[in-house]
Amino acid sequence: MTPEELDRGDPIAAFAARFHRPEGVIYLDGNSLGAMPLQTPARLAKVVSEEWGEGLIRSWNRAGWLEAPLRVGAKLAPLVGARADEVMVCDSTSVNLFKLLASGLRARPGRAVVVTEERNFPTDQYVVQGVAAMPAGCELRVVPREGLEIALDDDVAVLALTHVDYRSGEIHDMVGLTAAAHRAGALALWDLSHSTGAVAVDLTAAGADLAVGCGYKYLNGGPGAPAYVFVAQHLQDALPATIQGWMGHAEPFAFDPDYVPAAGIRRHLAGTPPILGLAALESALDIWAEVDREAVFAKGRALGDYFITLVEDRLHGFDFALASPREGARGSQVALRHEMGYPIMRALVERGVIGDFRSPDILRFGFAPLYTSFADIHAAVEVLIEVMESGAYRLPAYGARVAVT
Amino acid sequence: MTPEELDRGDPIAAFAARFHRPEGVIYLDGNSLGAMPLQTPARLAKVVSEEWGEGLIRSWNRAGWLEAPLRVGAKLAPLVGARADEVMVCDSTSVNLFKLLASGLRARPGRAVVVTEERNFPTDQYVVQGVAAMPAGCELRVVPREGLEIALDDDVAVLALTHVDYRSGEIHDMVGLTAAAHRAGALALWDLSHSTGAVAVDLTAAGADLAVGCGYKYLNGGPGAPAYVFVAQHLQDALPATIQGWMGHAEPFAFDPDYVPAAGIRRHLAGTPPILGLAALESALDIWAEVDREAVFAKGRALGDYFITLVEDRLHGFDFALASPREGARGSQVALRHEMGYPIMRALVERGVIGDFRSPDILRFGFAPLYTSFADIHAAVEVLIEVMESGAYRLPAYGARVAVT
Repeated sequence: MTPEELDRGDPIAAFAARFHRPEGVIYLDGNSLGAMPLQTPARLAKVVSEEWGEGLIRSWNRAGWLEAPLRVGAKLAPLVGARADEVMVCDSTSVNLFKLLASGLRARPGRAVVVTEERNFPTDQYVVQGVAAMPAGCELRVVPREGLEIALDDDVAVLALTHVDYRSGEIHDMVGLTAAAHRAGALALWDLSHSTGAVAVDLTAAGADLAVGCGYKYLNGGPGAPAYVFVAQHLQDALPATIQGWMGHAEPFAFDPDYVPAAGIRRHLAGTPPILGLAALESALDIWAEVDREAVFAKGRALGDYFITLVEDRLHGFDFALASPREGARGSQVALRHEMGYPIMRALVERGVIGDFRSPDILRFGFAPLYTSFADIHAAVEVLIEVMESGAYRLPAYGARVAVT
Repeated sequence: MTPEELDRGDPIAAFAARFHRPEGVIYLDGNSLGAMPLQTPARLAKVVSEEWGEGLIRSWNRAGWLEAPLRVGAKLAPLVGARADEVMVCDSTSVNLFKLLASGLRARPGRAVVVTEERNFPTDQYVVQGVAAMPAGCELRVVPREGLEIALDDDVAVLALTHVDYRSGEIHDMVGLTAAAHRAGALALWDLSHSTGAVAVDLTAAGADLAVGCGYKYLNGGPGAPAYVFVAQHLQDALPATIQGWMGHAEPFAFDPDYVPAAGIRRHLAGTPPILGLAALESALDIWAEVDREAVFAKGRALGDYFITLVEDRLHGFDFALASPREGARGSQVALRHEMGYPIMRALVERGVIGDFRSPDILRFGFAPLYTSFADIHAAVEVLIEVMESGAYRLPAYGARVAVT
């Protein structure tokens, strides 16, 4: 089928018109920073000029600012298969991971091991290394992907994994690994940053305990958008808050000198919520509420399959290696390996095809299903063919260098 | 002198025109949420539509997003008497306090006590209580204001205080207490949330080690604006980061599996910076760069003195008690105590005079010198007189109740 035919058969094709798409750009990096919803500038302008400028301090109640972390969390919850009161928007993914990891360790007294995977997303590695380095922190057990189940024994407090691999797009078996963690008596903590809005996630069905994720990738919440935490309902009142701030107090405005944790997930709210970032994320989530999520995830898969087929058909002489699963579960992204990956990506970007490069040799292309068309994929591959056939990527201007693997 | 004469003598009176001031409102709560600079909506609109919408991922470099936490920190530094590379904007005050407190404890091995004051701002209390509750956390020594120096012995790792008391406006002797902490071998950590932009702060002259503060009060960074950390230059490379995130890594884009802290203050940056919040705060700080700071602080003092004089002269029959220092060092705020404080504040707010109430019986009035005039103070006191003389505050609609002290 032609890309035009594929787009005509796409039930969610109309949503692309809800996003700003710069002229001359094919954007395949929505897994790094999502595109701007067209409705967001007006929403933010209202929050700034009306709610802040005119409403001032009164807007904490009148404009619903106080409830924003839970309200926006409830809008996000269906995307991860959670109940409305299991998700809250706050802080950054790194801070949230730290909070839940340290809390999870305390919820499993007598156990001091955190298991994670050696190819986990770097910030996740750094955060667990940081928790381990604290006094009475924890012991880290960093194992290959295939060794995770074996690593789970009765010393393990938390299994901490990223659901979708940030480079390859490989997807962990959340149901199986969560069950394995539970059999060992450990909690399962999932980083959903590369999953939410890209692939189906069902935390409830998996019985997951804890999760964190990012608001600025597939969710389109804007640069540095606030992140989120998930705590399963049955754990909420047993799990202590790590960073005890006033907004997580049972009565923040009583100004009580002693900390009393709020009921439920709110105790993990530490400081004053970032209202501008929350407003932009809420605006983006309102689009997600309108769309058939299953159609989104199916389209993400189809876009990736189409990209892989085109690369295989049209670029087989150019030494690209597929670094993503061909058939198995895969995020809405595809990675290609090429020893000249760095200058090739620079040449693509200069021609308006924006993906990204991940050291040492990976070209990563993200396919945000809400605003990426099959025609975009086709056009991007045409540009890649041109770059390879012309040898343009060998220009010194692109910093050509061979990757050291 | 009449309020008009006082305003004519105010060298920074013209700055009020740089802020949005709602019709019919006298805003005396800028110490809770600062007013909106008129230049901020356009600045934010540009960041949203041009930098995010059009620039997309490219703006991390092209629009200077990556450097924003340090760039905005450098703009803030003169307000706290710090060097440009000693301040960074990130996270919330609560999260930053947690980070620096935990780091400070690790920088003083063999010492496990944190000293603080019993009337410290609640969120500061909660955060230190949270650190104390962690495994191998710390021991808390919470003492009355006058007992601080005596409490400093060689078990103390950190003295953690809020510089300006959030209710009374009393100011700690930063120079003396920092020196006392150092004599005991402890670090001094200051919360400047109620100080910065209101009173002169000179962290360098005081030899302070660590500080945190808030962007949304006197700085006018917007609701839930990002907060900041200060780490004295000589400590920066010795102090570990508590929350090790990718943006605090020496090479965030190398995606190295092992954490290597960035040099300097940047290691305390954990997750991806909140670009919208940073943009609003930067816009506000650009106004601060234009103004004579000494004139700001002198005006803050004068506004408070004028308010106290008017209250003493005109409201002496109504049982108000001054809960702020009359002569001594004081923040740019004045607290009055009244057993009917709650309904009185509600009656004031309904008449457009916005201050706030702090349990059990405190009416708190903040005087943001950048946009508050002597005429505002005079008019506010006139409304307070009307409320008291008419007895309007006794209406059940205002929830009249006697404070339980």
